[in-house]
Amino acid sequence: MDYSKAVPETIRKLIRNREFMMPTSGVASGYAQANLVILPKEYAYDFLLFAYRNPKPCPLLYVSDPGEKYLEKIAKGSNIYTDIGNYNIYNDGVLVSNVDNVDKYHRDDLVSFIIGCSFTFESELVNEGIKIPHMEKQANVAMYDTNIKLEDSGVFSGNTVVSMRPIKSKDVTKAVMITSRFSQVHGAPVHIGNPGEIGIEDITKPDYGDFVGIEEDEVPVFWACGVTPQNALRQSKIPFAITHGPGYMFVTDIKNSDLITY
Amino acid sequence: MDYSKAVPETIRKLIRNREFMMPTSGVASGYAQANLVILPKEYAYDFLLFAYRNPKPCPLLYVSDPGEKYLEKIAKGSNIYTDIGNYNIYNDGVLVSNVDNVDKYHRDDLVSFIIGCSFTFESELVNEGIKIPHMEKQANVAMYDTNIKLEDSGVFSGNTVVSMRPIKSKDVTKAVMITSRFSQVHGAPVHIGNPGEIGIEDITKPDYGDFVGIEEDEVPVFWACGVTPQNALRQSKIPFAITHGPGYMFVTDIKNSDLITY
Repeated sequence: MDYSKAVPETIRKLIRNREFMMPTSGVASGYAQANLVILPKEYAYDFLLFAYRNPKPCPLLYVSDPGEKYLEKIAKGSNIYTDIGNYNIYNDGVLVSNVDNVDKYHRDDLVSFIIGCSFTFESELVNEGIKIPHMEKQANVAMYDTNIKLEDSGVFSGNTVVSMRPIKSKDVTKAVMITSRFSQVHGAPVHIGNPGEIGIEDITKPDYGDFVGIEEDEVPVFWACGVTPQNALRQSKIPFAITHGPGYMFVTDIKNSDLITY
Repeated sequence: MDYSKAVPETIRKLIRNREFMMPTSGVASGYAQANLVILPKEYAYDFLLFAYRNPKPCPLLYVSDPGEKYLEKIAKGSNIYTDIGNYNIYNDGVLVSNVDNVDKYHRDDLVSFIIGCSFTFESELVNEGIKIPHMEKQANVAMYDTNIKLEDSGVFSGNTVVSMRPIKSKDVTKAVMITSRFSQVHGAPVHIGNPGEIGIEDITKPDYGDFVGIEEDEVPVFWACGVTPQNALRQSKIPFAITHGPGYMFVTDIKNSDLITY
């Protein structure tokens, strides 16, 4: 089966039935994949305000009602508690469990935050002929902690985490223009050029992911990264939260092309 | 005194001292003016989610912490409870009082929502040479109830209210491009052309404001309007809320030019 050509509903069903248990990069091509944060309603206001105050690292695609499990509006026939292949469970900010189904944790006071993912803008960049080195080398994108302070909201705070893609100098303008149209999946770069200015001391040593080199004719381009809200979640030490496991995203019915901001 | 050339801090001080008690259109030129909604923390999550779900009619510029009174981050030396010339007070969705100072209503659980206002994009349109008929005729903009459903959130729901500006056919593209860059002040138009399609039966009879005619070479262009969240607030019938009085806006230190979305 060519998973890249499958529709999102098929992928979600395969995952639900434990028939597809791999990272979701490349599946259901053309459809937006998303990060997941589930937390109690008690903390939902602070988190929603945190996302509003920091829209680049925390771009919201959807916020569920408390207790909402079947996210029909963005994923037909879905169950957000079973349709991801890998979930992390946190108690007091500490990862306590990694499972492939969280249905038994469902509670009426839990709110799901569905957060945009860079897969969308990467596929748009590639469609427009821009080379993304880590994709060509089948590596993970390089990610770095920075000195870019986030706006606090209640228990949530921290610094922005960025992803870095080396982009050909001739393509940087195009990369800015394209990603600026996708504000719900991190939008335009937050920094272009000298890594030291945002507190990255050694660009060859990412805090997460893989460094794949920067060529003479390439410039390091930094986008806000979806790891940011998960870090803030851990640092908040709230009693209970669920997230997706890295690389195992929620495959939505939203078309990448529908995420262009008007 | 030429109020259009005054800085925002001066205008706010004059208002606080009851020395400037007129509508604020045209004052502190170049700075963003804003709509205000104050409501109890108990309803703040629903309202914040309502604004997130309906970003065009409810574009947030700032959300205060509960009890926050001096909005230093967007207005130096300000007091949001005294620095507007006219406030409306609502009990159970009913307007019960219209006053020039609400300092005595301050409570530690009240949250202020500062919402973008079309004055910002109108001044940008005028700066770029686009004629805005109601401004030239010193009338109020025409506003209409529509059949465009809002996304519900808790107690908040309703339809979008739009403002309409007749724009010269040759300038419509330019008006779209300019306003699309200002997503925090209603952004690009929601509808261009036939009013009937969005449920407006008689364009000559606005639900609010003044109809100033549409010339042969003009097209009606509709933007989401800041009256929308206030209508939703009234319809919600929540026990207590404060808003600004129409035309009496909060004058912030935010430059219009800083509201361009990147």
